[in-house]
Amino acid sequence: MTQPSRRDLANALRFLAIDAVQAANSGHPGMPMGMADIAEVLWRDHHRHNPTNPQWLNRDRFILSNGHGSMLQYGLLHLAGYDLAIDDLKAFRQFESKTPGHPENFMTPGVETTTGPLGQGLANAVGMALAEKILAKRFNREGFDIVDHRTWVFLGDGCLMEGVSHEVASLAGTWKLNKLVAFWDDNHISIDGNVQGWFTDDTAARFEAYGWQVIRNVNGHDSQEIETAIQTALKSSDKPVLVCCRTTIGFGSPNKAGKESSHGAPLGKDEIQLTRDALDWKYAPFEIPAEIAEAWNAREAGQKNEADWQALFDAYAAAHPELAAEYARRMRGELPQGFAGSADEYIAKLQADGPVVASRKASQMAIEAFAPKLPELIGGSADLAHSNLTLWSGSKDANSDDANANYIYFGVREFGMSAICNGMALHGGFIPYDATFLVFSDYARNAVRMSALMGAHVIHVYTHDSIGLGEDGPTHQPIEHLASLRYIPGNDVWRPCDAVESAVAWRAAIERKDGPSCLVFSRQNLDHQARDGEQLRNIARGGYVLKDSVGAPELILIATGSEVGLVMQAADELGDGVRVVSMPSTDVFDRQDAAYREAVLPKACRQRVAIEAGTADFWTKYVGLDGAVVGMHGYGASAPADALFQHFGFTVDKVIEAARSIR
Amino acid sequence: MTQPSRRDLANALRFLAIDAVQAANSGHPGMPMGMADIAEVLWRDHHRHNPTNPQWLNRDRFILSNGHGSMLQYGLLHLAGYDLAIDDLKAFRQFESKTPGHPENFMTPGVETTTGPLGQGLANAVGMALAEKILAKRFNREGFDIVDHRTWVFLGDGCLMEGVSHEVASLAGTWKLNKLVAFWDDNHISIDGNVQGWFTDDTAARFEAYGWQVIRNVNGHDSQEIETAIQTALKSSDKPVLVCCRTTIGFGSPNKAGKESSHGAPLGKDEIQLTRDALDWKYAPFEIPAEIAEAWNAREAGQKNEADWQALFDAYAAAHPELAAEYARRMRGELPQGFAGSADEYIAKLQADGPVVASRKASQMAIEAFAPKLPELIGGSADLAHSNLTLWSGSKDANSDDANANYIYFGVREFGMSAICNGMALHGGFIPYDATFLVFSDYARNAVRMSALMGAHVIHVYTHDSIGLGEDGPTHQPIEHLASLRYIPGNDVWRPCDAVESAVAWRAAIERKDGPSCLVFSRQNLDHQARDGEQLRNIARGGYVLKDSVGAPELILIATGSEVGLVMQAADELGDGVRVVSMPSTDVFDRQDAAYREAVLPKACRQRVAIEAGTADFWTKYVGLDGAVVGMHGYGASAPADALFQHFGFTVDKVIEAARSIR
Repeated sequence: MTQPSRRDLANALRFLAIDAVQAANSGHPGMPMGMADIAEVLWRDHHRHNPTNPQWLNRDRFILSNGHGSMLQYGLLHLAGYDLAIDDLKAFRQFESKTPGHPENFMTPGVETTTGPLGQGLANAVGMALAEKILAKRFNREGFDIVDHRTWVFLGDGCLMEGVSHEVASLAGTWKLNKLVAFWDDNHISIDGNVQGWFTDDTAARFEAYGWQVIRNVNGHDSQEIETAIQTALKSSDKPVLVCCRTTIGFGSPNKAGKESSHGAPLGKDEIQLTRDALDWKYAPFEIPAEIAEAWNAREAGQKNEADWQALFDAYAAAHPELAAEYARRMRGELPQGFAGSADEYIAKLQADGPVVASRKASQMAIEAFAPKLPELIGGSADLAHSNLTLWSGSKDANSDDANANYIYFGVREFGMSAICNGMALHGGFIPYDATFLVFSDYARNAVRMSALMGAHVIHVYTHDSIGLGEDGPTHQPIEHLASLRYIPGNDVWRPCDAVESAVAWRAAIERKDGPSCLVFSRQNLDHQARDGEQLRNIARGGYVLKDSVGAPELILIATGSEVGLVMQAADELGDGVRVVSMPSTDVFDRQDAAYREAVLPKACRQRVAIEAGTADFWTKYVGLDGAVVGMHGYGASAPADALFQHFGFTVDKVIEAARSIR
Repeated sequence: MTQPSRRDLANALRFLAIDAVQAANSGHPGMPMGMADIAEVLWRDHHRHNPTNPQWLNRDRFILSNGHGSMLQYGLLHLAGYDLAIDDLKAFRQFESKTPGHPENFMTPGVETTTGPLGQGLANAVGMALAEKILAKRFNREGFDIVDHRTWVFLGDGCLMEGVSHEVASLAGTWKLNKLVAFWDDNHISIDGNVQGWFTDDTAARFEAYGWQVIRNVNGHDSQEIETAIQTALKSSDKPVLVCCRTTIGFGSPNKAGKESSHGAPLGKDEIQLTRDALDWKYAPFEIPAEIAEAWNAREAGQKNEADWQALFDAYAAAHPELAAEYARRMRGELPQGFAGSADEYIAKLQADGPVVASRKASQMAIEAFAPKLPELIGGSADLAHSNLTLWSGSKDANSDDANANYIYFGVREFGMSAICNGMALHGGFIPYDATFLVFSDYARNAVRMSALMGAHVIHVYTHDSIGLGEDGPTHQPIEHLASLRYIPGNDVWRPCDAVESAVAWRAAIERKDGPSCLVFSRQNLDHQARDGEQLRNIARGGYVLKDSVGAPELILIATGSEVGLVMQAADELGDGVRVVSMPSTDVFDRQDAAYREAVLPKACRQRVAIEAGTADFWTKYVGLDGAVVGMHGYGASAPADALFQHFGFTVDKVIEAARSIR
């Protein structure tokens, strides 16, 4: 059996992409054809992984930030020997196949993160590289580099145009993530054509300005140049590396190479034949000749990679049993033994003590209570540490040599921050939290959505949750944000009404392994609410009866956060028939069984008023056409908070008025 | 009267900020204290404006991108002689005062744009500079540079950390916006402290990589150095200019200068006295001595600025009367005479012709129909021109010398794109539109909010509006986006059901001068719907009866966009008692008078089903607790669109099932 040429090996990737896109009659062949030669060198000679165990803890991470080129990744995974058969590739972009249009971390073994929304793959990769660096500091010991892997990223012009690339490349430079290596598919083409009209950055100079090592002018179709570049990248001791690969999109296609027409549509039957001829590829669609399959197969090498590491880890475990157990626990995503019990205790004590604080302060108290037992809790703020109250007494700067590094100064970079947290969560070993003002969740919005779509265990902390923010005015006052975040499928939003609910929310977010939570906190002080044991337990169900009527309720008042205290006062004035429901998380409440929901909000009671200093319309879901909502119908204003609550009608009188209006 | 020193003049700004923040007990003194010397040189010697007419068409635009330093701008406006009295400054951050916490374009004469959300002020400025450049190409004639002004921007570290700064600085370089001059407040401090821990970019090198001229190492407290830098900036012939000003935040405060403690809180009484002593400022709070007031006052100079221009313009009008009239019309934001009539005609013809096309195609047809009469219509796409269908036969690249430039290749920069469009709209002379896939409105979200908050006449075009996008999968399929955009106060969202509604939506967006519209279009073909004259007219009311029941409705089916066709089929099967309401814009429908709304959705009819391939919960607003919604409850998937509509229940059978479930 002759050894196939590197070009032939790369062509296998090209034709898997070409033929799968053609079969699906949809997809993006141009990028896989352009980056195949780079992928071949990287995956066959450098990428340290184990196709037989995509979850091997110390594997290199490979991220396709230009995710529309998904067929390149599927081709690589298939050829390397992952559990992705040729039939899976034939089902590219079909319902419930393992080969969706863009790589989805929850669909395909070996896909580390979901990509497609441009720039965020790079951000995830920065998060993974940061996770690796911090875990290495924490767990490695002399002779035992048990955490020691690289993070490889493919990215395109689109990723580099997106603002998030700026935010995260800047941080990667500041953090000196030298084991992060990005390959730029510099093909001069984006969807609208030659980028000369809209992308004239000197990208190499730009990345040098961020403190990256930049390897310029690599011919992305010359295996030797690619190999040399990777060798150089491997030597970087204190800088992330950008390899600038000059490539031809649609490489090999006689009529579409170098053109945007190869980007996002099948080449077409005739052009595919011409490409087969041009590249001297004699095989039928989805046919991979044995010698090429053999040369690609990485199952044996991968098992050796893991076995070598496992031997090292076993020796480490013998020498440092507690560290090894702790590392294994964290990578399994298991909370420490005793966490639940100590959380119960803390929450019970809060209920008894009844502190009257802003919920952002209650959030900090919760971190202070929980974090000492949770070394995996790592987080920070987008330059609002003292407003978001994300620092606690055990915070150690992640950008230091401290082995217990757990605090990240993200700077004013909300989108990058959240996308980096997604990457850290996917890497494993951490429960990341981030923080900004609620209104600026807008800047990070698609990363929050990606947390939810991917089921990433990330905690988004949002303070200054309403017009209660006061003087900073309408640009800083969230209105629609609560409702909009609740509408992101799979995202749990909490808006607690006091210190107790705040602690329960934090605990729920920590214990929710399969998705993100948004914890929304007030700037201003909130009353403490009395609760019996059952009420205390029911907070975790998202909504519960905080004050009940005498007999069946004639009127139900539903509120969240800062408006719960108000409603409790109104209820006193309204008399015996009134029930108050505190609803810190509609998402969690909606997941409760029907009996519980009916017990809290009986269908028979249609006199319902919801009160929240956010979008009024959202609450029609709970009050229906016969109820009323005291909420916001427009923007806030710049003034002291008390003046705003008065002006916008968040008063006991207005709640009573609303209640009477529907009687 | 002695001529005050430049430092004294700058100190007037410093103490207005110090004292106003102290009086409000809230605000940001550090930035005004740090940038006062730069502001003094710029405003007194270079900024060409007219305080007695903040709307003078050819004024320089001044943008405070670091908007938390609002008191600097208020001080400047007050001292220069705008309609902003010392009592207004004393009411800083109070309810309904003209001096809100952040500059709001709708509150304060002389404030060009609302700033505070960091980075977007720079983006708005890029839009204004682009507007100026294109208007100049269009209207200037030999000897008549009637459009000829600069755009000045102040910005801070926060603006530079935000990703949007990357997107727009890159475009400004590509577009060679040489009359854009940005002053970077390089004070080494952001809210969390010295930026060394999180902001280590070589910003000067970064901006050079974008094709900017960078003036390094300017002492921001040395008037001569500032003056020299501005002189250099004025000579730039083909590059935007970044002036890197080394400043001290809180300059003059003995104990807080150079520290984050001066950033976002009052200095405090004692420190204010120490600062008065240190800067030798002998005056009481809000007292400006006459010679300083005199030296600042720009009313006379401003009137001369405008008078000189007016004389030029009058001569231009004599030589080029049609051009002058057209320029004036466009700057007034008036549509051309006859627009309404020709729109009526086009819409009537469409109704008669009944084309069956994707609504994105109908959108392009609408542009093609309206744009030839609307030279002010300018727009483009974030690298999806051929998917969004934003190009039309008269498109001319804005980055060319074409006098009719009207098409912008934004590259993959959604956030920057929308914020630039906000700037163009605020500048005047244009109705900007931008475009991307609906799901990527997430990336631009806060700019869309800012369009609405500012009442900017911008049109956001979003195609690929649902799971109908198909194979690209859940990262590309919007779910919560329709509802979330509708919840942005002041934002009009349209999701038309056919080519006719698409044209009406475009027309409404063009005619809506006081705020943004989001036009949401399908990838796939949509049926044409029959309408009588009244129905055709009622489309513009946002919701209307498309098919009525025989007698009072027993069941109302409400749908938008691609689901309207489905519902019409279901209605046929459900029989006589069924009314179908097409609801292309809930925002517009909600603004109709109560009688109209009751006529469309009579309160008495509670059997209601809403159908939309987006967040189901949104529709509880119209169907209440007794109705049903056929909508999305989670993410989509990668598959052909037909398979997805089947799987997720958007079928005639499911609509009928839902209708029967509530009977």
